[in-house]
Amino acid sequence: MSVVRRLFLSAPYYQQAARRSSTSVEARVWTLKYKCRGLPKLSDFECKSEILPPCDDGDVIIAAEWLSVDPYMRYRIAMSKPCDVIVGSQVAKVIESRNADIPVGSYVLAYPGWRSHARVSKQHTHNPSTFTKLPDFGPIRRSAALGILGMTGNTAYFGFLELCSPKAGETVVVNAAAGAVGSAVCQIAKIKGCRVVAFAGGARKCDYVRSLGVDEVHDYKSEDIGAVLKAAAPDGVNCYFDNVGGDFTAAVVPHMAEYGRISLCGTISTYNKQRGEQTAPPLDPGWLIPKQIRTEGFIVTRWAPRWMEGIGQLAQWIQEGKLKYNETVIEGFDNMPEAFIGLFRGDNIGKTVVQF
Amino acid sequence: MSVVRRLFLSAPYYQQAARRSSTSVEARVWTLKYKCRGLPKLSDFECKSEILPPCDDGDVIIAAEWLSVDPYMRYRIAMSKPCDVIVGSQVAKVIESRNADIPVGSYVLAYPGWRSHARVSKQHTHNPSTFTKLPDFGPIRRSAALGILGMTGNTAYFGFLELCSPKAGETVVVNAAAGAVGSAVCQIAKIKGCRVVAFAGGARKCDYVRSLGVDEVHDYKSEDIGAVLKAAAPDGVNCYFDNVGGDFTAAVVPHMAEYGRISLCGTISTYNKQRGEQTAPPLDPGWLIPKQIRTEGFIVTRWAPRWMEGIGQLAQWIQEGKLKYNETVIEGFDNMPEAFIGLFRGDNIGKTVVQF
Repeated sequence: MSVVRRLFLSAPYYQQAARRSSTSVEARVWTLKYKCRGLPKLSDFECKSEILPPCDDGDVIIAAEWLSVDPYMRYRIAMSKPCDVIVGSQVAKVIESRNADIPVGSYVLAYPGWRSHARVSKQHTHNPSTFTKLPDFGPIRRSAALGILGMTGNTAYFGFLELCSPKAGETVVVNAAAGAVGSAVCQIAKIKGCRVVAFAGGARKCDYVRSLGVDEVHDYKSEDIGAVLKAAAPDGVNCYFDNVGGDFTAAVVPHMAEYGRISLCGTISTYNKQRGEQTAPPLDPGWLIPKQIRTEGFIVTRWAPRWMEGIGQLAQWIQEGKLKYNETVIEGFDNMPEAFIGLFRGDNIGKTVVQF
Repeated sequence: MSVVRRLFLSAPYYQQAARRSSTSVEARVWTLKYKCRGLPKLSDFECKSEILPPCDDGDVIIAAEWLSVDPYMRYRIAMSKPCDVIVGSQVAKVIESRNADIPVGSYVLAYPGWRSHARVSKQHTHNPSTFTKLPDFGPIRRSAALGILGMTGNTAYFGFLELCSPKAGETVVVNAAAGAVGSAVCQIAKIKGCRVVAFAGGARKCDYVRSLGVDEVHDYKSEDIGAVLKAAAPDGVNCYFDNVGGDFTAAVVPHMAEYGRISLCGTISTYNKQRGEQTAPPLDPGWLIPKQIRTEGFIVTRWAPRWMEGIGQLAQWIQEGKLKYNETVIEGFDNMPEAFIGLFRGDNIGKTVVQF
């Protein structure tokens, strides 16, 4: 399933293809214009152009095909200063190469930020954590390398299995369950024999999550989280995969079972808040100690040495029909900021990708 | 080192020894008189007397020799109702026995609460988590079974080693470092080759902690915790053993190193606060996620199957001169509430025990 949202912004210059000369490529680059406060606005971003330096021996030049927008970028933007390029990964095609291992026409996963084109130097092409040549995905669209067969898939796979250590029969709570990571966690938990109580926002998303085969789906916008869990998990929640943080987490923690495990993946509810704006402390030791609860924050790159283990298992589950995924596609590089901001309005079902 | 604080309360009745008849023993029992709010007061407690039922086959009657007061009792009192007996452990002598395995004159560790005398029924004498016959402690006073060779020692041993997983050369932060648990954690961390930055309240306690051989001692009452850690742990804190919680923890968390481990032992700073009275959220996922920090709450009884492993190792370290401990002794069963309340005024260095 794939939903395409078409957005049109009046930015004719940027809709041109990159101009090329014999020695240089002109790239478009999204930068931070103003230090963001609260929910980012379109006017916080500025698209600039830059001429890429020519390839040295071992370098390649890549052209974006699919670009990723992810909630973590909000956190990185908060640490950025004006004129910094927005961070991010992309699936790109090699259009110039002075590297025999990566010929023109290869598809790669790279991390040049929000750039239409980028030169990747020899030392970066040799660093598997910033540059990977993509295998043939067969019937699966290459954009999956940004989602279910990439960072968000492995975030769900390792972040859930390694930190929640789920056992068959245990009760698992997942929030933002219609999102890229949450939807994968729900299904991995079911594959592992768990009972899954999922939360999403609004009927459309709840319907989607229901279609994934979870045990219960609840709309956090209209239901009381504590009351839901009291009924849905009378013996307590064993595993909580938290994408949301803030008040949501404060409501779940009192319902954790003894020896419960909480995987702290993200806090999307708080990314646009200033320090001090938050209400309840999400992780109260007054609950964590008597219930002997373990919590662990993570960034998925810690499992870089096992990266292909996760991708291989996820691909197998997709082929076996056990794992579904969705992509929300936004068309046009010009719409990168709009696609990103949409994450915080809750526009997306599954992974949001921008098609160049 | 042992400090005896003598307290005299006007409670002549309670200073009498228990009256005994041929079939019954009269016991004194401290109960909760009023539901506590905030710091407990002497008037929240009431001492009553009760006649113990005679021993059935397999039962014993014990007389308290040393009684424990511990911060966790505040938490249990919060869940208690008026007339409930206050929970707690004691070292006691068997004064009547209808159990051949536990003859009169045996010394035991038992959990009858704040009672001068108690009948322990056959099923309880067979439960090692509520009743243990004490070995000969040699030159070590039996009160150690309530402290360094008992619950607080094992709390330090397992709670630190199992949940902080310290490695030689790592930086460890310990608060309430002059307390029963904190002082043991400081020394275990040194034994394991760690660098220890300890916090205690006031010059007297800081001097005591310094005598234990830690690397740095700071007075949390007069120094800024964040500024101390910025200087003392420029590469971050690897292990944080937290006895205090609340604002103290909120100040430490931003100084944790990547992959830091926090052992959540207690939150003495918050035990006397109502929900909602707290200020900064102590464990902010906004720090825990990017730094990939693990936190775990615990109750020491989870390591009951390994209990003697901890006690044995602690005893060996004491014999080898590697582990020092202190007891603050309060005299008289009548002074149980006063001894307990003193924990929250920060009166104690090391373990507080009440001598019957």
